[in-house]
Amino acid sequence: MSAKEAIHITDVAPRDGLQNQAVDVGTEGKLRLIELLVEAGLRSIEVTSFVSPKAVPQMADAAELAAQVQARFAALRTSVLVPNLKGLERAHAAGAKEIAVVLSATETMNRKNINMGLDQATEVSEQTLAAARALGLRTRAYVAVAFDCPFEGETPLDEVLRLSARMHAAAADEIVIADTIGSASPGQVKARMAALRGVVPIERLAVHLHDTRGMGVANAWAALEAGVRRFDASVGGIGGCPFAPGAAGNVATEDLVLMAERSGFSTGISLAGLLAAVDFAQGALRKPLGGRAITWLRRQRDKDTQDNTRRLA
Amino acid sequence: MSAKEAIHITDVAPRDGLQNQAVDVGTEGKLRLIELLVEAGLRSIEVTSFVSPKAVPQMADAAELAAQVQARFAALRTSVLVPNLKGLERAHAAGAKEIAVVLSATETMNRKNINMGLDQATEVSEQTLAAARALGLRTRAYVAVAFDCPFEGETPLDEVLRLSARMHAAAADEIVIADTIGSASPGQVKARMAALRGVVPIERLAVHLHDTRGMGVANAWAALEAGVRRFDASVGGIGGCPFAPGAAGNVATEDLVLMAERSGFSTGISLAGLLAAVDFAQGALRKPLGGRAITWLRRQRDKDTQDNTRRLA
Repeated sequence: MSAKEAIHITDVAPRDGLQNQAVDVGTEGKLRLIELLVEAGLRSIEVTSFVSPKAVPQMADAAELAAQVQARFAALRTSVLVPNLKGLERAHAAGAKEIAVVLSATETMNRKNINMGLDQATEVSEQTLAAARALGLRTRAYVAVAFDCPFEGETPLDEVLRLSARMHAAAADEIVIADTIGSASPGQVKARMAALRGVVPIERLAVHLHDTRGMGVANAWAALEAGVRRFDASVGGIGGCPFAPGAAGNVATEDLVLMAERSGFSTGISLAGLLAAVDFAQGALRKPLGGRAITWLRRQRDKDTQDNTRRLA
Repeated sequence: MSAKEAIHITDVAPRDGLQNQAVDVGTEGKLRLIELLVEAGLRSIEVTSFVSPKAVPQMADAAELAAQVQARFAALRTSVLVPNLKGLERAHAAGAKEIAVVLSATETMNRKNINMGLDQATEVSEQTLAAARALGLRTRAYVAVAFDCPFEGETPLDEVLRLSARMHAAAADEIVIADTIGSASPGQVKARMAALRGVVPIERLAVHLHDTRGMGVANAWAALEAGVRRFDASVGGIGGCPFAPGAAGNVATEDLVLMAERSGFSTGISLAGLLAAVDFAQGALRKPLGGRAITWLRRQRDKDTQDNTRRLA
């Protein structure tokens, strides 16, 4: 039997998941969530965002959190989001080794999100990537609303290709194609990934999927079939986007791990470990969490516990 | 632009969905649900099962229901499940034009489900198909637990191929590969459909998916990619299996329609019409229903209604 092919998952719950919550879990809560994710086997986590604390108060502890995470989990790929050179400076001062920039693929989304036009936003992303590279940091570049924009409708594929090529030319280590509002279908993912492979080497492509319309797992499978091996996901499906009306949480890490492992890929991530993280996040956020498979996963865990108890009795 | 390719969906909610419910919706309730499905654009519905009323009391009205549905909806492909020659006789007496037989692919599942071994069950299915064909009826043959069996674990692919080939040799018009307990992954669906194409013409293959582990829509996409164009689904995801521990409902018709239409296929089915059927079934069964996209679909409907109201105001 051949060895399973590995896929790489970045859990974005501490950033994309928590930035939009009514309850602030605090720095200690975030650290505990990250610790549980590391224990579950995650080797890459997007921990915070160096945005304006006025815009996203949940991320006001970015510097402290990033520094603590890197001190405690040296082997973890700790990624932080930076909106511009100023954010990069703060992230670098906090000791960040990997940063991510976000470029939306439409004029209106950039204006609503960061109050810049598309051209200016592209330049800012390029400048930030160049500066990060000069500092020796690893870099990710999100191309957001890469399928549909909540304000402009379907995003022209040519724009997504053009911007992805520019992020690649700017030497981003990963180009993260984001279905920010969770509107993509597997047919669209298949078509766009096939086109994107023509402008960005497949090993540099990642997808960031939301599960608004219940197609997140199907879209992940379509991306896998297209050759993509890098995925963002959020434990428990925690999430949403403060600037994208109607967006639900990211595809749940536990759903993605279950699907990939059952389909013959290895993730290095433990489902039991992820369930412990979901349980903790539920308590901290005081609301039910969990992806599409959560009922089955919990029932299976209870059954395993009963079986073990019976064996011991 | 090329015309969209059509896929064919059989809604099994009135049979697979309702056979396992605490609340009996009555013949009138079933008729109303079927009427709403026809209004939504469904052209094929599995309406009932001619099993023993002692085993499945919810189906005791099979003869009356089948007769009424065929009288009221002449253009509908009305399918009924029959366990054996006796069931076929009852179905034929009620005027049925299409029947389905169920053959489980493992020894234990057949014993638990119909108290016969695999060999005997296969012969009964073949006899029933031959008799139905002699009566001029259209036929479907389910190959159940075609991925995993709740009692025996993973079902050997060779068995699934052998039994599917026998059902094809018995001239079943459709061979319906059923993931009875909802354990399949898209990787498994891809592999098994590729093998099944070798023994059954692809246009005769259908898949019947359950959504227990949140992979139903992804599995449907994997089947579409493998060339399958015939799908079972259940409006609102109503369902479960009385004889298969841990099985959840079928993949929801609304999830499948949304995914297929957004991926460039045509279904001929209206999402608004399906939502009306889900609303009705919720009321009749007195519990929340709906697939993975239901929250988004309802929000979208409310938004459309508001937009229309605003236009009129």
